[in-house]
Amino acid sequence: MSIEARCVRIRESGGPEVLELSTTEVRDPGPGEVRVAVAAAGLNRADTLQRRGFYPAPKGFPDDIPGLELAGTVESLGEGVSGFAVGDPVMAIIGGGGMATHAVVHSRELLPVPTGLSLEEAAAIPEVFLTAFDALFAQGDLRMGETVVLHAVASGVGTAALQLAANAGARVIGTSRSADKLERCKELGLAHAVDTSDGTFADPVQQLGGADLIVDTIGAKYLAENLKALALRGRVVVLGLMGGVKGEMPLGLLLGKRARITGSTLRARPLEEKAALAQRFIREALPHFADGRLKPVIDAILPMSEVGEAHARMERNETFGKLVLSWK
Amino acid sequence: MSIEARCVRIRESGGPEVLELSTTEVRDPGPGEVRVAVAAAGLNRADTLQRRGFYPAPKGFPDDIPGLELAGTVESLGEGVSGFAVGDPVMAIIGGGGMATHAVVHSRELLPVPTGLSLEEAAAIPEVFLTAFDALFAQGDLRMGETVVLHAVASGVGTAALQLAANAGARVIGTSRSADKLERCKELGLAHAVDTSDGTFADPVQQLGGADLIVDTIGAKYLAENLKALALRGRVVVLGLMGGVKGEMPLGLLLGKRARITGSTLRARPLEEKAALAQRFIREALPHFADGRLKPVIDAILPMSEVGEAHARMERNETFGKLVLSWK
Repeated sequence: MSIEARCVRIRESGGPEVLELSTTEVRDPGPGEVRVAVAAAGLNRADTLQRRGFYPAPKGFPDDIPGLELAGTVESLGEGVSGFAVGDPVMAIIGGGGMATHAVVHSRELLPVPTGLSLEEAAAIPEVFLTAFDALFAQGDLRMGETVVLHAVASGVGTAALQLAANAGARVIGTSRSADKLERCKELGLAHAVDTSDGTFADPVQQLGGADLIVDTIGAKYLAENLKALALRGRVVVLGLMGGVKGEMPLGLLLGKRARITGSTLRARPLEEKAALAQRFIREALPHFADGRLKPVIDAILPMSEVGEAHARMERNETFGKLVLSWK
Repeated sequence: MSIEARCVRIRESGGPEVLELSTTEVRDPGPGEVRVAVAAAGLNRADTLQRRGFYPAPKGFPDDIPGLELAGTVESLGEGVSGFAVGDPVMAIIGGGGMATHAVVHSRELLPVPTGLSLEEAAAIPEVFLTAFDALFAQGDLRMGETVVLHAVASGVGTAALQLAANAGARVIGTSRSADKLERCKELGLAHAVDTSDGTFADPVQQLGGADLIVDTIGAKYLAENLKALALRGRVVVLGLMGGVKGEMPLGLLLGKRARITGSTLRARPLEEKAALAQRFIREALPHFADGRLKPVIDAILPMSEVGEAHARMERNETFGKLVLSWK
């Protein structure tokens, strides 16, 4: 039996005004799955891209209901689920449809909410912390003592990566076009701040010894400068293309430094990869939320009815950390 | 006490006519090192680049004596060398100066000559097989059942990579601009041949399911086409830039396929990395020369006095496999 849920709907491609509250049917959980009564959902840049019609949802997820992460309580269990009971506080990434009062998630992708965090706080964790964790450690092979450059360090993914990298014994250089945001990142563990208002950063990074790893969401505009900023055997992990999709690649630097560039996205991965990432995150990162070494960085918690205003704020780049939308 | 050796000397930057036979002093082996009485040395494209003045030797190696690999017998041992005795047949890569009758090599970089091979045959092994082995397995993570595209498959590195990949259970697609060379590669294990006379190859590779790994020595000219030819999570390992150093990088494909591009060179690596590679090669690849599953592919063995002619042949792209120069 499916259940009727409230949801955010993208009426048509366009500005924040195309978002409206609506209702949808959410199916029962199948074998291994749980249905979550969603309390809150974090907002991500992919939601704004999907709203504008630039980021179709992966197969099996609705194109017109945004939402890539959620937190709530287990509402019902499919066959064969172990480790979770009805009422348990949980959080997860989801391929789409997270901005609804109910959502079905596979139990192997489900994360328990760390002790001491509200569901609204938890809703700010999954997407940015799993993305950052995967980029730093699975794609980027970051090790203790290495130097990592985080572009847009004050963003959701940036502040998550900053805490994870600093907590793993790496030295973090953060970039931003806002001196104020860079200042605020220092209390999260930022060792060096680079203002990229002029579009360059390789020289100051090289003066600090070069980057072993760069996590980049800019793409083409930073491609050559990233290669210049790398140390020998450095790695670049590209997560986004906010600065263009085609860039000139300095292959001489790639060979000379024996460098590596990896493209990565979470959303379209198959179940087994997302589940493997979730399980690794539970083992390695989740304990550090309970002991306070990691924390969600939240710009604001807004009621779900203000989802349009939240999109507009994100698109004005005014936020520091995450915007969370709550059904309460 | 150093020893006087005969050698090939690059008189000045230029064509094959700048090469001449000369003499040089070769130092005694230090702790952990051996001095080899060199019987033969393989010719590599890097030698021709060095002759033209485009590839300076790494620190500690002569700029004016070419030679990146050698085979011979152990002539004397430094302190603390174990596992080798005077007279043992050995082969090795070397940072430079390999085209001399004597050369000093660290014992951890030294490879025993496989049973049944002459020293001239052995001289065709180290550079191309270590390069191909490192590119396929260390940089490229090639696994059984995967599909690998080898550009310039009839070259020295190409024919080595072809045998190694086929022997590891991978399916090999080879490219070349010569239909005749592609035909000859079939007996070495080539599953599919793609003629790249028109500069493209992505369509036929995609019709075969896409490439899990591409080993490329072309660089800029093939960059976009390589990305197009990759399967999901495919990797490109770039070993050379014969087709240019700056190319347009399609970052959308990099992210969409979650692809990875790695630049790699052997020559400038520090001792510990070269030694680690040699030791892994001894364990995993060397046994297959003795049992006949791997063999050096030799275009011709020439006397060292014909080193200029050998350079000219390589630069005319007339060779299939390796040119070896012998002191005998």
